[in-house]
Amino acid sequence: MSNKISVGVIGATGMVGQNYIRLLNDNPWFEVAYAAASPRSAGKRYREAVAGRWHMGTDLPSRVGGLVVEDAGNVHAALGKCSVIFSAVDMEKESVRKLEMEFAAKGFAVVSNNSAHRHTEDVPILIPEINHEHCDIVPAQQKHYGWSKGLIVVKPNCSIQSYMIPIHALMQKGFRVAKMIVTTLQGLSGAGYPGPSSLDMVDNIIPYIGGEEEKSENEPGKVFGKVTGGRIVPDGTLSISAHCTRVPVIDGHSACVSIQFAGARPSIDETKDAWRSYRSVPQELELPSAPRQPIIVRDEIDRPQPRKDRDAENGMAVVVGRLRPCKVFDYRFVGLSHNTVRGAAGGAILMAELLKVKGYIG
Amino acid sequence: MSNKISVGVIGATGMVGQNYIRLLNDNPWFEVAYAAASPRSAGKRYREAVAGRWHMGTDLPSRVGGLVVEDAGNVHAALGKCSVIFSAVDMEKESVRKLEMEFAAKGFAVVSNNSAHRHTEDVPILIPEINHEHCDIVPAQQKHYGWSKGLIVVKPNCSIQSYMIPIHALMQKGFRVAKMIVTTLQGLSGAGYPGPSSLDMVDNIIPYIGGEEEKSENEPGKVFGKVTGGRIVPDGTLSISAHCTRVPVIDGHSACVSIQFAGARPSIDETKDAWRSYRSVPQELELPSAPRQPIIVRDEIDRPQPRKDRDAENGMAVVVGRLRPCKVFDYRFVGLSHNTVRGAAGGAILMAELLKVKGYIG
Amino acid sequence: MSNKISVGVIGATGMVGQNYIRLLNDNPWFEVAYAAASPRSAGKRYREAVAGRWHMGTDLPSRVGGLVVEDAGNVHAALGKCSVIFSAVDMEKESVRKLEMEFAAKGFAVVSNNSAHRHTEDVPILIPEINHEHCDIVPAQQKHYGWSKGLIVVKPNCSIQSYMIPIHALMQKGFRVAKMIVTTLQGLSGAGYPGPSSLDMVDNIIPYIGGEEEKSENEPGKVFGKVTGGRIVPDGTLSISAHCTRVPVIDGHSACVSIQFAGARPSIDETKDAWRSYRSVPQELELPSAPRQPIIVRDEIDRPQPRKDRDAENGMAVVVGRLRPCKVFDYRFVGLSHNTVRGAAGGAILMAELLKVKGYIG
Amino acid sequence: MSNKISVGVIGATGMVGQNYIRLLNDNPWFEVAYAAASPRSAGKRYREAVAGRWHMGTDLPSRVGGLVVEDAGNVHAALGKCSVIFSAVDMEKESVRKLEMEFAAKGFAVVSNNSAHRHTEDVPILIPEINHEHCDIVPAQQKHYGWSKGLIVVKPNCSIQSYMIPIHALMQKGFRVAKMIVTTLQGLSGAGYPGPSSLDMVDNIIPYIGGEEEKSENEPGKVFGKVTGGRIVPDGTLSISAHCTRVPVIDGHSACVSIQFAGARPSIDETKDAWRSYRSVPQELELPSAPRQPIIVRDEIDRPQPRKDRDAENGMAVVVGRLRPCKVFDYRFVGLSHNTVRGAAGGAILMAELLKVKGYIG
Repeated sequence: MSNKISVGVIGATGMVGQNYIRLLNDNPWFEVAYAAASPRSAGKRYREAVAGRWHMGTDLPSRVGGLVVEDAGNVHAALGKCSVIFSAVDMEKESVRKLEMEFAAKGFAVVSNNSAHRHTEDVPILIPEINHEHCDIVPAQQKHYGWSKGLIVVKPNCSIQSYMIPIHALMQKGFRVAKMIVTTLQGLSGAGYPGPSSLDMVDNIIPYIGGEEEKSENEPGKVFGKVTGGRIVPDGTLSISAHCTRVPVIDGHSACVSIQFAGARPSIDETKDAWRSYRSVPQELELPSAPRQPIIVRDEIDRPQPRKDRDAENGMAVVVGRLRPCKVFDYRFVGLSHNTVRGAAGGAILMAELLKVKGYIG
Repeated sequence: MSNKISVGVIGATGMVGQNYIRLLNDNPWFEVAYAAASPRSAGKRYREAVAGRWHMGTDLPSRVGGLVVEDAGNVHAALGKCSVIFSAVDMEKESVRKLEMEFAAKGFAVVSNNSAHRHTEDVPILIPEINHEHCDIVPAQQKHYGWSKGLIVVKPNCSIQSYMIPIHALMQKGFRVAKMIVTTLQGLSGAGYPGPSSLDMVDNIIPYIGGEEEKSENEPGKVFGKVTGGRIVPDGTLSISAHCTRVPVIDGHSACVSIQFAGARPSIDETKDAWRSYRSVPQELELPSAPRQPIIVRDEIDRPQPRKDRDAENGMAVVVGRLRPCKVFDYRFVGLSHNTVRGAAGGAILMAELLKVKGYIG
Repeated sequence: MSNKISVGVIGATGMVGQNYIRLLNDNPWFEVAYAAASPRSAGKRYREAVAGRWHMGTDLPSRVGGLVVEDAGNVHAALGKCSVIFSAVDMEKESVRKLEMEFAAKGFAVVSNNSAHRHTEDVPILIPEINHEHCDIVPAQQKHYGWSKGLIVVKPNCSIQSYMIPIHALMQKGFRVAKMIVTTLQGLSGAGYPGPSSLDMVDNIIPYIGGEEEKSENEPGKVFGKVTGGRIVPDGTLSISAHCTRVPVIDGHSACVSIQFAGARPSIDETKDAWRSYRSVPQELELPSAPRQPIIVRDEIDRPQPRKDRDAENGMAVVVGRLRPCKVFDYRFVGLSHNTVRGAAGGAILMAELLKVKGYIG
Repeated sequence: MSNKISVGVIGATGMVGQNYIRLLNDNPWFEVAYAAASPRSAGKRYREAVAGRWHMGTDLPSRVGGLVVEDAGNVHAALGKCSVIFSAVDMEKESVRKLEMEFAAKGFAVVSNNSAHRHTEDVPILIPEINHEHCDIVPAQQKHYGWSKGLIVVKPNCSIQSYMIPIHALMQKGFRVAKMIVTTLQGLSGAGYPGPSSLDMVDNIIPYIGGEEEKSENEPGKVFGKVTGGRIVPDGTLSISAHCTRVPVIDGHSACVSIQFAGARPSIDETKDAWRSYRSVPQELELPSAPRQPIIVRDEIDRPQPRKDRDAENGMAVVVGRLRPCKVFDYRFVGLSHNTVRGAAGGAILMAELLKVKGYIG
């Protein structure tokens, strides 16, 4: 009998849900004991529920394949089966907000990929390397809502990791970025399945992704914010303009970034050193999903490239390259991260690992 | 017997050269009477020289197919056969510079796609809608080099048309752009044939194009410059930072642009009006290759897209969309132009048409 | 006032419907006067009904854009507005069958892209070059159903034109193909919009297309059949095995074909000659949409290729290449045709042109 | 100090060579101690020789990165450094033939990916599951050429594994295939780097691969042949016609196969059982690179697909699907194998493992 922590995945049959199933299969701390999805999947074995639409490159883990899928909206069905809920439901935002609150009220630790609670002021948006201390809002959150041990934490939008972590590395060294203009070239899997039609993505790109620019511009402030008086006060010193485009790449979000510092700026070499030597709490705690080297700097003139670099450190590293002076701002560079691993299920599992070590789940 | 002006294409077998052959086939003023290429093609019929590597979507024009290809380096071979040379040679830069000078010295009007003379201070980089008056440096150029009727004009880098023309439209209305940060997503044909390996362009993008960012940042100053004392004094008021990427799109360069004005800025509606009503000298003169509407504004949230918009106005229009406020600068938008038509052969033919009307060739 | 024949398109907002609108815009004989689609489009201007999902490379013809879309199921709405109905509805097969019968009963000539009536024994599947004489079943059809001037003709599945026409050219010369094994590599537009997910078509192919192999194997027999006693008796002498695959190509169905003759076989040169010299009734009648040269033989070793050859003769020609001996059967070759032009709307318009000349519509 | 067998890779910097370096990195029996390439790479560290053109998805193994690359043509340089030579040189065929003979004469076991010796009558073309007993020609080979312990074995063309192994499984059960018509849809990596231009592989397929059809039709006879009197007598009972096409897929060759049996044929179920239960000598010997299950049968209607199935059993399995009756022959199915693993370096390493167990190398 395993002594891993039992976890559940709601929205388990979708693309993010499948990534959870795939990644959790090898996790030394967590084990999937509960899978829920929409009513039309409920009652089927997980194996049947995803038959013909299992999109992962590896085979469906057989133990999870045998689980009977529950209705994601039925909080009671999860009771006694798991203590952590990874939320990947794809429903109308207000319904998600309520459902996640219900799970928390019943004592579950909710770790969510959904954007519904990203603006709830006592729910942290976590990138464990950057704002691990935001976990410590959990007691205030529990007090506020009257939860005994339930909690909600959320992950940020998938496209911002490729520049947020590099910027954080510079903040650690005392350099503050004041302005950033970024254009992203985002992979198809970020849109879920079926996502964009192939008729739109052969010999074409789409220079628009609904809601993506707003999220990319607004969420960083909260991630870089401070926990004060039971809520997170967003940082207001960094202005971001994001142009988001969709390109015919399966996985991997690339970002072309121009940054301007407030005050002193590091040299090119200091910047690369700050990136290469960057380590944070997930590395110190040796969390199972933490990349040993969170930022990989490539010196080749034409890297990072999605197909060649997205799997670095099992998809949990950010790969950067082309650091050079900008003709308008101070510097520019290209960042890349794996949107369905670091930017989705992998990043969320890392959050859960952090919460476990901090004693909030387990 | 046609009374069109006889023109020659040097570098006629390459991709830009083939586009010249294709586009000139329908031109009412010019007729290809001379084709030259590298020594290994010399002596063959053009048809044989491009056998198995004719990359145009339409069939090879049969009259040109029968021309005997000459050695591009042999200026004498062109004497008596044509008066205009479209230069699409792909050689070491210094050799191109000299070769084009030789042709001009022999009395040919050289209209070049090559970048060799873009920094020669009395050779104009022409975008006919923007700086048609730069043609008028020709007499000074002829005097300087002692040419009777020869001349050299060059076209700019293919990726800048998609934002230069929209910016010019705003300058016409009295608004001056001071700063611009742009990321381009450029089509494959810009690299010539064979260009990028398919192994690099399936499920991938390449965030680097050799030399492209420098050209994109430097050439606009000269295009917006003033002719003074027999040379072109670049405009120094516009700072540009360009990130150039290669995407798996056959034709069409997209640009995600953020702009900041110096002084007053137009409203969103004024900007769209300025673009929609934009007309310039090529339109007034009704040059055969001039788009009737040089800037097409699309209102759909997800346009322009390369496959759907690149052929607007036979590939000679710039298509813009997504005009909206920028969180860091004033505005941002997406521009698109057809790199092998407007950005290469088509743009150069338009230059020649302008020179003809101005009396410099004919 | 135009004296063209007024036609209607039902299913006008879908991909095949849009192709009809696009192709009919330049037709000298027909003019779109009626457009119908599903109830949710009914009542809107066509322009609004397709806003954001007009997939053609050319702009929406403005006259059609202004038509008010009717409910495709409402036969009465079409009365007095047109005499020909191009049917591109995408509904359950039995409903289509009935709807098309209703239109015919009301006196409309129904020219259908739908497969519903392909097995009705007195409804011809027409490829005008091959079985133009099947038109002459119309009087028997009208008599059978008691229609005064209504009629129904259907076009075959889009993937078979690339080998049926070349085989017919050999039949014209007296050579009979007995067995054929073919593998098709079919373009995305054949699946309609949105069709396959881009997540399935980047770095991938799908070796299956629902229903396609059965249609490809069964329809040729009827096309090559004989009209006898008011019905079409299928030819039973040609056995076909079709493997159908989907590849990431926008338009164009390629076919790798191995054929075995019954009795004498032509030489390679005789075969090419038969193809190059092939002309049939649509060419003799100079129908507006007929390709002057229905079969184009390319001698390059690596042709036909979809992007380079699909637009030959405005997409109405079949392009063949790589004719060579087969190690198992007699010969093998590669055929290509444009699936949304020759294989869909273009082929159907050609059928209507044939019916007009024959006096069945007009 | 490792007690693995030291091996060398010649042609180590090319794509197949890189695959050897990658795959051998984890091999428990072999260790790369020697790397050679063309004279322009000779003298550099392997790391530098492949800088900017390392195409594998995983990082360059650091130990091999430090090896000094030798000139592939210099047999003496390898003496004392390794006993096995994996040959992936890309040179004119006659030179390869001679070079491989020289290596064998000096005592090296040459395991070659090159086609130069595929027609040498005492050099076996090995697919270890099928014709492991062809190894036993080695003593005769050594005697014939006067080699003490040198030997040459070669692997077959990369595109035939996907149907040869399934056919062998049926031969094991006593069913003999007499005729086969196959169309392959082959991945880009089969062409080496840079291979096809991206301009030819976006929105396109190429229905021709130089030399591929001949190899696919001729090599199976030798693989299925008999060792008699010191030479391999090809089997002459199976006729194959192969149409080979290139599709925009990175890795993975798909094959659409129609087969006809001589004599009795198995039922569909017997065929699937024969495939699923197929095991051969590499599995019995538990060779490190042998797939536990050499043939994987997928029941989904639309599989195998290259991106989803090519990595089964670390790229060493053949994945088949869509077994169904053929309208012209007996059955048809789709097969898939990973061209750079099973079809190239992986298959060759498996051959070397077999030779080791049989005592011919070590």
